[in-house]
Amino acid sequence: MISPLEYAQEHRAKFVAELNDFLRIPSVSTQPDCTADVAQAAHWLAENMKMAALENVTVIPTAGHPLVYADWLHAGPDAPTVLIYGHYDVQPAEPLAEWLTPPFDPTIVGEYLYARGASDNKGQVFAHVKAVEAHLKSHGRLPVNVKFIVEGEEESGGAHLRAFIPENKELLTADVALVSDTSMLGYEQPSIVYGLRGLCYVYLDVTGPARDLHSGSFGGGIDNPLNALAHIIAQLKDKDGRVLIPGFYDKVRPLSDAERALLAQTPLDEAAWLAETGAPMPWGEPEFTLVERLGARPTLDVHGIIGGYTGPGGKTVLPSTVHCKLSMRLVPDQDPAEIGRLFNEYVQAITPPTVTAVVTLTGGSPASITDLTMPAMKAAVTAYESAFGKAPAFMREGGSIPVVGQFQHFLGLETVLMGFGLPDDRIHAPNERFYLPNFYRGIETSIRFLSIYGGADGVSG
Amino acid sequence: MISPLEYAQEHRAKFVAELNDFLRIPSVSTQPDCTADVAQAAHWLAENMKMAALENVTVIPTAGHPLVYADWLHAGPDAPTVLIYGHYDVQPAEPLAEWLTPPFDPTIVGEYLYARGASDNKGQVFAHVKAVEAHLKSHGRLPVNVKFIVEGEEESGGAHLRAFIPENKELLTADVALVSDTSMLGYEQPSIVYGLRGLCYVYLDVTGPARDLHSGSFGGGIDNPLNALAHIIAQLKDKDGRVLIPGFYDKVRPLSDAERALLAQTPLDEAAWLAETGAPMPWGEPEFTLVERLGARPTLDVHGIIGGYTGPGGKTVLPSTVHCKLSMRLVPDQDPAEIGRLFNEYVQAITPPTVTAVVTLTGGSPASITDLTMPAMKAAVTAYESAFGKAPAFMREGGSIPVVGQFQHFLGLETVLMGFGLPDDRIHAPNERFYLPNFYRGIETSIRFLSIYGGADGVSG
Repeated sequence: MISPLEYAQEHRAKFVAELNDFLRIPSVSTQPDCTADVAQAAHWLAENMKMAALENVTVIPTAGHPLVYADWLHAGPDAPTVLIYGHYDVQPAEPLAEWLTPPFDPTIVGEYLYARGASDNKGQVFAHVKAVEAHLKSHGRLPVNVKFIVEGEEESGGAHLRAFIPENKELLTADVALVSDTSMLGYEQPSIVYGLRGLCYVYLDVTGPARDLHSGSFGGGIDNPLNALAHIIAQLKDKDGRVLIPGFYDKVRPLSDAERALLAQTPLDEAAWLAETGAPMPWGEPEFTLVERLGARPTLDVHGIIGGYTGPGGKTVLPSTVHCKLSMRLVPDQDPAEIGRLFNEYVQAITPPTVTAVVTLTGGSPASITDLTMPAMKAAVTAYESAFGKAPAFMREGGSIPVVGQFQHFLGLETVLMGFGLPDDRIHAPNERFYLPNFYRGIETSIRFLSIYGGADGVSG
Repeated sequence: MISPLEYAQEHRAKFVAELNDFLRIPSVSTQPDCTADVAQAAHWLAENMKMAALENVTVIPTAGHPLVYADWLHAGPDAPTVLIYGHYDVQPAEPLAEWLTPPFDPTIVGEYLYARGASDNKGQVFAHVKAVEAHLKSHGRLPVNVKFIVEGEEESGGAHLRAFIPENKELLTADVALVSDTSMLGYEQPSIVYGLRGLCYVYLDVTGPARDLHSGSFGGGIDNPLNALAHIIAQLKDKDGRVLIPGFYDKVRPLSDAERALLAQTPLDEAAWLAETGAPMPWGEPEFTLVERLGARPTLDVHGIIGGYTGPGGKTVLPSTVHCKLSMRLVPDQDPAEIGRLFNEYVQAITPPTVTAVVTLTGGSPASITDLTMPAMKAAVTAYESAFGKAPAFMREGGSIPVVGQFQHFLGLETVLMGFGLPDDRIHAPNERFYLPNFYRGIETSIRFLSIYGGADGVSG
């Protein structure tokens, strides 16, 4: 009888071929045109889970995109239960012209697999499905009970999973949650994220005249919504990155000296990190280190502006309504709803009477911090050490995984964030990719984690 | 033998039908897709001029869009020569969704003719072609010599006419220029514009990281070009409209008390003007009146911004490069090239080292002021009084007609700006229209002007 690790080793080509099929489905949850594709991705994943010998595989409809549930619950009454979460939806691929390979035609170049969703999150969640398959197809059993809940709305707010969790506590009950939707610090430096930022996402629309006006005839006599929007944005954050919204920092939990010392040990190569961005220099609040600014401080970033004439050539228009999307990343203990309210109150206060501003809150999630001393965390550390040959670093991550806070709040679950992504995976950007050795080592780490957490050694399974 | 005025009266339906044919050609000079349409509009106009009995009708190729020239030079050695200018190109029709009728399918609703270019400038220049036709087809002659020069690049910078004028001084020599590319103050208030603002049009592109980044992973550590652009724009102009570029006002010719008194007589109905814009309130430099701000003060307006993710739903991107178009309206004696240089120097000085800004000067023209006492101006006043039943007001117009400055500089010509547009014509905006009674009265005004300026009384011709 072969071991789970041997099974995984022998089936690498099959696993990559299956992942390619998964990536070919353009499951962009924010774009209405892709609704059928998102559903197709859910059904494809469910079929793959059935082939992996998972049980009770169900595509659960919601008022939005469906959830995929599966489990294997025969490890015995004393074995712990792991709830594995991931998402099968992806970010929009735009701007398409900047992709060197088609975003939904997965292409392997060297050791990289290029496709939208390769790292975020299809490749990472699929590593766990394959780890479970390796256990079940080799030994016919798992050392722990396993439940999967995979959503199709992570990139579009996750509203329906957020509603599903409190209504289905029994179905989702577990001892710990396992999520792979984060990045390692570097190619040879595995890392476990113990803190995640939250998010408050808003649209800001500014309207001046009722119709577009000629800037020659009306310029100087009517305020311009694009100029007004710039004035509003410039008052949201100073040039060093301090958010100027009154009350924004009131609930921020201060960084303790102990935590600043822990974060100071994060082996971040600033020069390599900067080179990867291509920006002229790092930036941000001068009283905090780069590692602190990236994971432990709240932010405000404009994500998109469109307004006036943006076609070829010039046009001398004074536009009517202009549009802006922006978000604030939050830290403990900021409340997304309260931050949204403060944002709107401040924007209304600084909007001149010559234009009107409409703020729409489109998504929010709180930040989270995980207990580093729990047994599952220790099992994750040992599994990483075996698979990557190096102990993981502990870090706070700047991104937001709203479900982690929801697991904590509704199910009382702590989450192990076992990231297999890399800083240069280009998630949310053109030419997203997944480093294939991390796909293989991710599967191995997951196999070992399930074994160790279940009380076995993880090698013989 | 019928008179020119009778001819015009009898042929109104024919004139409108011809104008509709002219308007059906989408001669958008800024859009490369429309190049063939722009050429077609030039040839259509040339054919129409031949039918009007104009002579030496020529479509003159340039490195860009062609010029249309025509003349009739048999009024005798003592008769003055009028150079009539107009443009057959139009602004882009975007945003298309806001048009109630198709922009290139002219539609008459009540007394209005709706189409892109109906007022700016096809309808207005065509009125002069029809006035000349009325003289030539009734009396077989004109009281003055007439030359037409009609360009196809007014909305895209006019570079090739600007180059053509100094190379063809003999061809274009005249005693006065006549241009109808301005608006009257109101439906029953004809007006002669004696001052025009100049223009300095620039593109401003701001780049931060070399590629789009995930705002969760990088936010707080890398400056955001959209936030940086907002900070730059907010420093260009204060909230009351004062431009903050050092040296911007240095060459501005102060408004004399006499001119402020003349401008104070402009019969502008502020409430009606504001209602037409649909803006919440007027705006601008508090130390100047609305009339002064609209015509006699320089401005700075952003015309378009596009950057980051602007599709449906949300995306948490920290964009690489973002784009902005803006212009400054100039007054005597600001120099467009110098203003462009000052703009770039200031932008570079206020751009933080975390991003780079690239300024591209795409067009410029100086402001102009015309002598109110010259004979052609007096002829225009009398013609207006006869056709509209009311003496014209003298005003300064906020828009820019670069060719007026070029005629002054290269040909020594003063220009009579005989506008037939109305403030609610929606030029440069969706649902542009031309008030058909002004088309007919415009033809009559032109017929009478040519007669009076040539020494006849204009009624009998």
